[in-house]
Amino acid sequence: MKETRIIALETRDLHFPLSQGAGSDAVHSGAEYSFATTLLSTGNRIYGTGIVLTLGQGNELVCQAIELLGKTLVGREIEELMADFGATSRSLAEHPQLRWLGPHKGVIHLALASLTNACFDLWAKSRGIPLWRLLLDLDPSQLVSLLDLSYLEDVLTQEAAETILRDHISSRREREEILSRGYPGYDTSVGWFQYEDSRVKELAQQAIDRGFRAFKLKVGSRDGQRDVRRAFMLRELAGPEAMVMLDANQQWNLPTVLEMCRQLRSMAPYFIEEPTHPDDIHAHRTLAEAIAPVPIALGEHVPNRVMFKNFMQAGAVGVVQVDCTRVAGISEFLTVSLLARKFGLRVVPHVGDMGQIHQHLVLFNHIAMGHQALFLECIPHMQEHFVHPAQIVEGVYVTPQVPGCSSDFKGVVPAARAEAMRS
Amino acid sequence: MKETRIIALETRDLHFPLSQGAGSDAVHSGAEYSFATTLLSTGNRIYGTGIVLTLGQGNELVCQAIELLGKTLVGREIEELMADFGATSRSLAEHPQLRWLGPHKGVIHLALASLTNACFDLWAKSRGIPLWRLLLDLDPSQLVSLLDLSYLEDVLTQEAAETILRDHISSRREREEILSRGYPGYDTSVGWFQYEDSRVKELAQQAIDRGFRAFKLKVGSRDGQRDVRRAFMLRELAGPEAMVMLDANQQWNLPTVLEMCRQLRSMAPYFIEEPTHPDDIHAHRTLAEAIAPVPIALGEHVPNRVMFKNFMQAGAVGVVQVDCTRVAGISEFLTVSLLARKFGLRVVPHVGDMGQIHQHLVLFNHIAMGHQALFLECIPHMQEHFVHPAQIVEGVYVTPQVPGCSSDFKGVVPAARAEAMRS
Repeated sequence: MKETRIIALETRDLHFPLSQGAGSDAVHSGAEYSFATTLLSTGNRIYGTGIVLTLGQGNELVCQAIELLGKTLVGREIEELMADFGATSRSLAEHPQLRWLGPHKGVIHLALASLTNACFDLWAKSRGIPLWRLLLDLDPSQLVSLLDLSYLEDVLTQEAAETILRDHISSRREREEILSRGYPGYDTSVGWFQYEDSRVKELAQQAIDRGFRAFKLKVGSRDGQRDVRRAFMLRELAGPEAMVMLDANQQWNLPTVLEMCRQLRSMAPYFIEEPTHPDDIHAHRTLAEAIAPVPIALGEHVPNRVMFKNFMQAGAVGVVQVDCTRVAGISEFLTVSLLARKFGLRVVPHVGDMGQIHQHLVLFNHIAMGHQALFLECIPHMQEHFVHPAQIVEGVYVTPQVPGCSSDFKGVVPAARAEAMRS
Repeated sequence: MKETRIIALETRDLHFPLSQGAGSDAVHSGAEYSFATTLLSTGNRIYGTGIVLTLGQGNELVCQAIELLGKTLVGREIEELMADFGATSRSLAEHPQLRWLGPHKGVIHLALASLTNACFDLWAKSRGIPLWRLLLDLDPSQLVSLLDLSYLEDVLTQEAAETILRDHISSRREREEILSRGYPGYDTSVGWFQYEDSRVKELAQQAIDRGFRAFKLKVGSRDGQRDVRRAFMLRELAGPEAMVMLDANQQWNLPTVLEMCRQLRSMAPYFIEEPTHPDDIHAHRTLAEAIAPVPIALGEHVPNRVMFKNFMQAGAVGVVQVDCTRVAGISEFLTVSLLARKFGLRVVPHVGDMGQIHQHLVLFNHIAMGHQALFLECIPHMQEHFVHPAQIVEGVYVTPQVPGCSSDFKGVVPAARAEAMRS
């Protein structure tokens, strides 16, 4: 195999303004989707792109943290680096000074995610295959060596992680059908918080016409009756068979969410997403018991495997929305997916990457771990900016075939390569 | 009262190298104590200084976050601002874009702490009194209006918080004796991780001679037998009556900590500090049950009131080491102290401020909430750099009398004031 060595690390502070009201929820407004982007350049024409999402301000802080944290990657050969990436991930996460800023959360952990995602992208490109293929090609011990399993010893040892993968090898073939069928999607873009009722109705009808059967509505108004009205409106429009998810974006406290869920019960939500503060495991457990069998979905703001382990141990989460642009990248995403498998929980990623990377990861989760192929969120607002935007046709993600993680932005290339392209 | 208006906000990225081995523990090495410092200047000669600790690299990220987050404070009159500071704190914590970088943790939350501490410092200086006096002068409703109690509704309402304070008013007089007696200290500086056994012995003897009867030893070696040897050595030297605390700085996983605590039980530690990952509530609860009645101390890396609430609800913490330079400053420190009172738990702050601000806060906790006056950590390495360093005499903190929070650094003043001093 040809040697691929990282010769430089650059960052890009990328901002993409959204049209009015898009991306809005009960706590976030005026957002512009922004990406703290890592570029790893090599001596040849390929480069690695790593992304994490922010909402605008502060994106540059993540870029600076990437540069502080990523220095030691420069000079590394990619196959050699990825042969034992779990150890590298741990040593970056345990940086003796930068660790203080987390640990394992916030700006510094987002930086680690961007770096990690760039390494995986470069690795897949250097092998000339898409990420899902690369991961499926690894044997269980190679896959697990990518992961930092520290602080999970009481629940998921290295051996236990390998066993989950090994136990699913013989049945892979039947699940590989998904590659030709495509992974189901669901539409988040119909029910943004600031959209008027009429706009929600119109967009939902369009999504139904495009083949979607699952929809999400943003709730968490100060006026709870607005939430109730819109939820029943969408249920009526979508029909009793459709899946309607409600997302409160942490806006409710525990007494409020218990009351709101009582009022929304007969609307039959498929799940309740981020009902309250993302650190409040106890409140989520109390709610989970109150609304069973309707599950709680969360993960968008859960920063690491240790917090996910705690949510799972407490029975406080039903649908695991781990996001490889919130936890420490693709490797911690895989760790959390293994944890979820151990606890018998579904994984439906939040897509801070607009689904670009996660379209690969859900294929791997389904085929290699036996996770149910439920559906993956679709957020169409950024499609024009990616070199290889996810293809969603008749409600399914078409399996990507281009080498890498599908995370390259148009016109965002390392300086050396940009120079070469100009000359 | 004279008007005191904030006319400018500046930050300082301050680094203070430590002598070899000082400040070292099982996960942090090569640290230089660094302070992301907020300076709030006014039209007159007073200014507010707010500090948070980092370990060197990344300190500048916190400074930048302070500038992004603090813009709205410029122009505010301090009495008017502090009359309803809980609402301001909440609106800063819920910034519609920056919130994504936490929420309520990491760089962005450290920035909020620095800003908050600067506001309190300016407020106390503008009234010409030390922080402990200022806080004691407020009536319960004024004190509670300083706090953001959101997401605590299931445990601590505004009314419940006021009640705790009101219930302790009549008995204040007897606890005010502490003001003349001084608040007890304990010495962290004898047992840094990288110190040789002989150095630990020598420093412990010196501390005993200076009047200390409580000591902390850093443990968490890869070689557990080193920890056991040093712990028993310190116990023998300090005598059976002394309090010897063991601090693992999160180095152990759950199976390891269960085994280590079994071996250390007969050494009779006063508490076990940060035994494992600071997000792992479930592991701490398991350990707490296994080592009772020896309590677990933690808080140094617990970022906010919601996480503290969860540790308390789970019975996973015995000694609450909340730090006003980790949570969102003095106001969230007070919130967590009220929570601890509600749960009947002791508060022994971690001192990221080297005890400068906390010497005020423990006096308030004791007098106004009835918290036991246990002891406050002493870290002497930074004394020369403060304008008014904490005075520790015969093992007790002498009650500070200078206006403000005691957090001014020598020579660190707003640009406008520096100019005035030169001319």
